[in-house]
Amino acid sequence: MNYSIIRYIVGLTLILEGALMAPSCVVAVIYRETAFWALLGSALACVAFGLLLRRKKPKDSVFFAREGFVTVALCWLAISIMGAVPFVLSGAIPDPVQALFESVSGFTTTGASILPEVEPLPKSILFWRSFTHWIGGMGVLVFLLTLLPMSGGFHMSLMKAESPGPSVSRLVPKVQMTAKILYIIYVVMTAAEVILLLLGRMPLYDALTLSFGTAGTGGFGIRNDSIAGYSVYNQVVITIFMIAFGVNFNAYFFLIFKKVGAALRMEEVRVYLAVILVSILLITGNILGLYDNVLTALQQAAFQVASIITTTGYSTADFDCWPELSRTILVMIMFIGACSGSTGGGIKVSRIIILFRTIAKEIKTYLHPDIVTKVKMDGKAVDHEVVRATNVFFAAYFAVFAISVLLLAVDNLDSVTNFTAVAATLNNIGPGLSKVGPTVNYSVYSSRSLLVMIFDMLAGRLELFPLLVLLAPNTWRKF
Amino acid sequence: MNYSIIRYIVGLTLILEGALMAPSCVVAVIYRETAFWALLGSALACVAFGLLLRRKKPKDSVFFAREGFVTVALCWLAISIMGAVPFVLSGAIPDPVQALFESVSGFTTTGASILPEVEPLPKSILFWRSFTHWIGGMGVLVFLLTLLPMSGGFHMSLMKAESPGPSVSRLVPKVQMTAKILYIIYVVMTAAEVILLLLGRMPLYDALTLSFGTAGTGGFGIRNDSIAGYSVYNQVVITIFMIAFGVNFNAYFFLIFKKVGAALRMEEVRVYLAVILVSILLITGNILGLYDNVLTALQQAAFQVASIITTTGYSTADFDCWPELSRTILVMIMFIGACSGSTGGGIKVSRIIILFRTIAKEIKTYLHPDIVTKVKMDGKAVDHEVVRATNVFFAAYFAVFAISVLLLAVDNLDSVTNFTAVAATLNNIGPGLSKVGPTVNYSVYSSRSLLVMIFDMLAGRLELFPLLVLLAPNTWRKF
Repeated sequence: MNYSIIRYIVGLTLILEGALMAPSCVVAVIYRETAFWALLGSALACVAFGLLLRRKKPKDSVFFAREGFVTVALCWLAISIMGAVPFVLSGAIPDPVQALFESVSGFTTTGASILPEVEPLPKSILFWRSFTHWIGGMGVLVFLLTLLPMSGGFHMSLMKAESPGPSVSRLVPKVQMTAKILYIIYVVMTAAEVILLLLGRMPLYDALTLSFGTAGTGGFGIRNDSIAGYSVYNQVVITIFMIAFGVNFNAYFFLIFKKVGAALRMEEVRVYLAVILVSILLITGNILGLYDNVLTALQQAAFQVASIITTTGYSTADFDCWPELSRTILVMIMFIGACSGSTGGGIKVSRIIILFRTIAKEIKTYLHPDIVTKVKMDGKAVDHEVVRATNVFFAAYFAVFAISVLLLAVDNLDSVTNFTAVAATLNNIGPGLSKVGPTVNYSVYSSRSLLVMIFDMLAGRLELFPLLVLLAPNTWRKF
Repeated sequence: MNYSIIRYIVGLTLILEGALMAPSCVVAVIYRETAFWALLGSALACVAFGLLLRRKKPKDSVFFAREGFVTVALCWLAISIMGAVPFVLSGAIPDPVQALFESVSGFTTTGASILPEVEPLPKSILFWRSFTHWIGGMGVLVFLLTLLPMSGGFHMSLMKAESPGPSVSRLVPKVQMTAKILYIIYVVMTAAEVILLLLGRMPLYDALTLSFGTAGTGGFGIRNDSIAGYSVYNQVVITIFMIAFGVNFNAYFFLIFKKVGAALRMEEVRVYLAVILVSILLITGNILGLYDNVLTALQQAAFQVASIITTTGYSTADFDCWPELSRTILVMIMFIGACSGSTGGGIKVSRIIILFRTIAKEIKTYLHPDIVTKVKMDGKAVDHEVVRATNVFFAAYFAVFAISVLLLAVDNLDSVTNFTAVAATLNNIGPGLSKVGPTVNYSVYSSRSLLVMIFDMLAGRLELFPLLVLLAPNTWRKF
């Protein structure tokens, strides 16, 4: 293991994090909040630690998938810990484990909170909290890649380990260029949302923070009632942008380069939109009796479906009070998640497609043992390695899921709470049902259980294996 | 598709079922019950239908895996439908869907019931109900194999499709001989349980019916309080036999042929017993406060763990009132299930072992991409095809699971009920939690939902693919 280069990159990431705390400091100055000192102190600490780790230049640039996984896992752990410091220093969340939970929830774009209410918090701290979503959404290392020219298999290893989905493809031959294009799309779309929200007469501060939460598909709100208090126009804007940020970014790339056909042919995007449409229609029909008219029911259903399938986690209604069919559909799409190559979490639509095609292929093999069939997507045969990795992903996913539920059970809350808490953190959604439903929060759990869910959020965001590799004793053995 | 041979075998199976109704007729005569006519009529109908289907000799003996799957699925459907007739004719369960649910629950050794109380039913009908467990436990087609000398790849195809577990191995070169040895072990063990229960002063009728339920790991009781009313000695005997029937029968085969070393080396059996031990200890510690002394808590924990991991479903305590940790452990071991090659259901211990080894192998591959590793069991490399089939099994399992929960949600019961109802039927256990807990029953569901669970029970017992093949439109297309 090439420890020196890992240390070097973790150092760089921390310096970057320090710089990214600057906008929050500005907010603190504007609103004249004492939290300024907490934010400034944290930023300086990030930079100091970063410089300390960067002191020695790495001896060699050997960098394999192994180093990629460990680097990504350690970077995310480091930025999460340092990201929690402003919460503790400002007194917003004095308990360190709860602060870490909130910070991990931010960076992993989960949006699960231990805060019973957010309105009493300083505006600058809430800004930082929402900004972590924006940083985590596209990935902090992908951002680093856009800035630093590095050589070797380095870029691809890092990008593969940090980006969601079964297969990461280079959109253009150079990985660095790919990362830049992705970030430009990300920034432009975020800006578009801010502008549209401002047109809906939303204050700038609200428009910025909520757009960060939408872009990263995070879900931290700045009001106790999440999004319910905003106008219907603004709710619709947020609905549309949540769905848009859950689309595979390759589709936008194709659109930019005028390959409309290629964008429309993307099966993952088509299935993703179809699942959203069917879910909205089914839920609208199911909750019709609870609302005054069809349009309100439709708008509420659309918001919640978009929020949950993209794993954002904003809410405008207490869907825990909806009928069981609606609740079950919401739990199902929690697991499906958004497209790969988007900022959303969950299992990812492409994996679900591969899952069902694998089953269909198996049945076909039983019927015609002599025919060689392949799992296909977008008209092309899916690489055998991708199918295998997808199967292993499912195995690991359910193993982590089961063990987490078992560990949470010690706190003696009810099964629905435990089950949906794990589902909501491992899929990076935010609210679950029952005691962790949209109107309540995660402070019901003990610190030990919060640590389990901190692991789940990181494992979910980094697609399990970087975290599992970090835990494997083999990783740290000399050989 | 060779339809003629499929029809021929279904006919044979029905004739066999008619013959297997004879003991229940005898019970009806002994207790002078009018249900005798219902049972006799059903038996004669089975034989008549069977002879009708067998009228024409099959043209050729072409028999592939395809025919194996379809035959097994159709045979199980046929015996389930005919097995429900005595319930309807005797007036015990007038509703045909509910009667079919009870019959499928019996043959698949699930033990889920729609009856609020069983004591008012005729003894001969309860005898038939328990006897279906015994028939279904080892498999009705395996039984047929012991009787009929047939040629071709026929035997193996049928046995593979009906027997549980990722890989069916021939214990002796001849498949028919293997089937015979398995049935002899099955009969001897059942007889041993009956004798031990009689020694505990249990009436013969009770000893027989409860032994049928234990042997098949079914779980239909003959008293409203299941097993709670019997003496501690008898509860302990049943506990031990439940665990014994969940062991891979290959282990007994090795023991008979004095290969003690081979039996002890079987990793699946060791892991199975270890999971049982750990679960019992954890639950005992967790429920200590609810019972007078440690021994009672231990005995209660052991009974429930044995009952659920083997997917029997007998109960002596309302575990729905136990603390969340115990309930969660019980739900987890519901999914694990018994050993492959036993009469128990669930995912099977060997699949869980393969699952974890696959994950470990994946992590190892990330660390050392150049090393070729293989998933191993019992010291030997597991065939690539078995690993692949296991992964596909998991995919299909979770797909069926998710779709079933979604379909049950329409009845608007709570999530715990729906989730555990699917878990309990797909894993062939019996009781779930909440509204389908050990003290209540499945009559809360609509007929439509009962049909979904009838599918789940059959899919669970036949390990998904025979049922999925039956549903695939391709199967019925001419080619």
